[in-house]
Amino acid sequence: MAKAPVLTPQAEDFPRWYQDLVNKAELADNGPVRGTMVIRPYGYSLWERMQQEMDARIKEAGAQNAYFPMFIPQAYLTKEAEHVEGFSPELAVVTHGGGKELEEPIVVRPTSETIINDYFSKWVQSYRDLPLLINQWANVVRWEMRPRVFLRTSEFLWQEGHTAHATYEDARDYAARIHRDVYADFMVNVLGIDVVLGRKTPKERFAGAINTLTLEAMMGDGKALQMGTSHELGTNFAKAFNTSYLSREGKQELVWQTSWGVSTRMVGGLIMSHGDDNGLRVPPRLAPVQVVVLAIKGDEAVLAKVREIGDRLKDAGIRVRIDDRTDTPFGRRAVDWELKGVPVRIEVGPRDLESHTVMLARRIPGGKEQVRIEALAELLPRVLEEDQALLLAQSRERREARTTEVTTLKEAAEAATAGGWARIPWANVGAEGEAELAEQAVTVRCLVTEDGAVPDADDAPGTVALVARAY
Amino acid sequence: MAKAPVLTPQAEDFPRWYQDLVNKAELADNGPVRGTMVIRPYGYSLWERMQQEMDARIKEAGAQNAYFPMFIPQAYLTKEAEHVEGFSPELAVVTHGGGKELEEPIVVRPTSETIINDYFSKWVQSYRDLPLLINQWANVVRWEMRPRVFLRTSEFLWQEGHTAHATYEDARDYAARIHRDVYADFMVNVLGIDVVLGRKTPKERFAGAINTLTLEAMMGDGKALQMGTSHELGTNFAKAFNTSYLSREGKQELVWQTSWGVSTRMVGGLIMSHGDDNGLRVPPRLAPVQVVVLAIKGDEAVLAKVREIGDRLKDAGIRVRIDDRTDTPFGRRAVDWELKGVPVRIEVGPRDLESHTVMLARRIPGGKEQVRIEALAELLPRVLEEDQALLLAQSRERREARTTEVTTLKEAAEAATAGGWARIPWANVGAEGEAELAEQAVTVRCLVTEDGAVPDADDAPGTVALVARAY
Repeated sequence: MAKAPVLTPQAEDFPRWYQDLVNKAELADNGPVRGTMVIRPYGYSLWERMQQEMDARIKEAGAQNAYFPMFIPQAYLTKEAEHVEGFSPELAVVTHGGGKELEEPIVVRPTSETIINDYFSKWVQSYRDLPLLINQWANVVRWEMRPRVFLRTSEFLWQEGHTAHATYEDARDYAARIHRDVYADFMVNVLGIDVVLGRKTPKERFAGAINTLTLEAMMGDGKALQMGTSHELGTNFAKAFNTSYLSREGKQELVWQTSWGVSTRMVGGLIMSHGDDNGLRVPPRLAPVQVVVLAIKGDEAVLAKVREIGDRLKDAGIRVRIDDRTDTPFGRRAVDWELKGVPVRIEVGPRDLESHTVMLARRIPGGKEQVRIEALAELLPRVLEEDQALLLAQSRERREARTTEVTTLKEAAEAATAGGWARIPWANVGAEGEAELAEQAVTVRCLVTEDGAVPDADDAPGTVALVARAY
Repeated sequence: MAKAPVLTPQAEDFPRWYQDLVNKAELADNGPVRGTMVIRPYGYSLWERMQQEMDARIKEAGAQNAYFPMFIPQAYLTKEAEHVEGFSPELAVVTHGGGKELEEPIVVRPTSETIINDYFSKWVQSYRDLPLLINQWANVVRWEMRPRVFLRTSEFLWQEGHTAHATYEDARDYAARIHRDVYADFMVNVLGIDVVLGRKTPKERFAGAINTLTLEAMMGDGKALQMGTSHELGTNFAKAFNTSYLSREGKQELVWQTSWGVSTRMVGGLIMSHGDDNGLRVPPRLAPVQVVVLAIKGDEAVLAKVREIGDRLKDAGIRVRIDDRTDTPFGRRAVDWELKGVPVRIEVGPRDLESHTVMLARRIPGGKEQVRIEALAELLPRVLEEDQALLLAQSRERREARTTEVTTLKEAAEAATAGGWARIPWANVGAEGEAELAEQAVTVRCLVTEDGAVPDADDAPGTVALVARAY
């Protein structure tokens, strides 16, 4: 008789598989207030690694971290007309503080453009103060009617960048730089996810932006996930908050702005990109634990060898963890590390000591082989880079295999509802076509040029729309 | 005529000096909602360095990071009687979400013992799950009637550790380990602040704790600042949330718990410990910028040399910043770096190029000297360690000089109101004496043993009370 699977198989019920994995790999739990989540230590260690990698790239792009209050006077939200319309259905409102009813209600930030512009308008005086490049790591709240852990939660963790520039061109180029050199570089080269870089349609833009750049990834079930966005805000917030500067020529000018963010939603994207029926598969460059060294049994010689191997690999610069919990059956621990998606397991038993070998199990391509202990420190970095490349290749292959070229709205909707993406000339869709697709819960994920670049305008000739169902 | 001072002198008005420094060194601004603050990039970079140093020590102590929701059902707070009494006057309450009035009001976490115990009670089943050692970096809200930036703000950033143990002894030892190996080690060896480690009196304990360990520092005006606390919670929250485990002997037992936290308040402590009339002085081991290399004038040879020196120092492992903003007058930039407390300034002008020397200005002891460029990479690490030691020595000397040994309540109150600390036998104070001192806004900061150790009990013979005014 076959063993009962640890997770609901993907093919049987993908959303259920996702929920099973999140629970059994101990990534997160639902919070007591509807739509909130508890990020458990292993899930949080994935987010910490994302933060480290992103933070380095953000600093490399010249932005500095700061922190703005999460409480925003309600009146601030209403200063930019589209912004308030976009966000007011999602707000959490504080009406009481320190035992008293407040004179003015306070909202918990859904995003920080308004409060940040209040300060930018004080800090920016002359062209010498520009560009002003700020980032913050914070929690935000957007009330969710249909929450799903990591993907749509009422409170989530993110970084939000906010910048002010002297010219339109400068702001445009910076939004594109973040899109490409920070976000795409991280997602492709660290997460191993083959994201498509594109431009949102006017309908799908951020509330208050003149242009939104997006990164879209195909999940294991063929749906799309928006992994991050970078916005050109034009002078919309600058007008609302009077954020202006004295130019080199002595004129008072409005600043041009950008904002950009990625969130804990990326953890959901990671799971649904690389997970399989045995659990998560974490790309080695991201992995908080790249290699786990397991003692099969608890005798002293085995434990000593496990520690020795662990130390040696740590010295070789590998993120390694020892598993010497031999009072828990070996099989259960092996399944647990498989669920958690640690790329390499090294299993050490009494017989291995004589032969100076260990069993090396690879989570990403699968398979096991006997390896000489002496060879590990040299072998493993190569193995990890191979596995990193494999995940990216699989992500690319899936997207290519499940993307169809079509010309009609009907075909596009069919491809999307069948669990794939459609590429269709944007001229054949337009705002009306978008509305029609929306009735079938299908959206234009982004616009790209014929050769796959990011279009400069909404209606450049030859623009292609990428159409899909999305999380 | 003497130059007008940049800051209000400390001796003239210490609180005003503090506020001036916070503004002029661009550390923080007041937020739009009363009691909140905007932490500006330079202020935030101090906090980031604190986080890095603390996070490494917390992980070394075996705790793992996680994240719990900031929204807590109001009913949770009421489960532990002392806890709700302590915190309810300070709560911010969310009554509306997603455009609707909520059925049950939600509080924004003032601290997370309650919500964390809700999960600990699910995660802990057997003795094998213990100890459970969790930390989170988060924002919390405690409504403030008399806010002061960094020191008392309605929203602040902190880390809060929460642990569960099988026995009283285990929990007690872990709270003490955090107190000593994480907090004191960081504050003494990185912040350069000569903290006193002690035990809080029953009156000053955390709401819900059976014992609170504290770290108290003397500020520049002789007042005390509580820099951090580590609590033994006993089984109080375990009872309220039924957090129990199956022991090795097969019995169901309550867990013993600890919690511990330090916050952005430490930035205030840093300022008031080490600042002087010219601004902040940042201890080198903490400093986000240890050395700034300034171009006095903008000619190309000077700028090239500045960059060359910067690269060389970076290679030597020094955290270095280049200041080539030569369109701003040199004097203004020098004052700005002095205000920000960067330990070493290296000033490069055209004449220095010929002599292969630079001017080295030291912020901490003061003074300038001509130094050969070749000697810098070897000289600077020594200079920085000297400065680190000097700050700690000054902090210690101040505390010793301004602490008086007394025997009566009257003398203790006099010493405290004169701007110093008093040491008085705890037997001469007691709960009644504490109440009497409180009328003069004087508190028992902590209890210590005769030889300066942390007492094991509230009323051990020979216990000494440290009495002061406090922030």
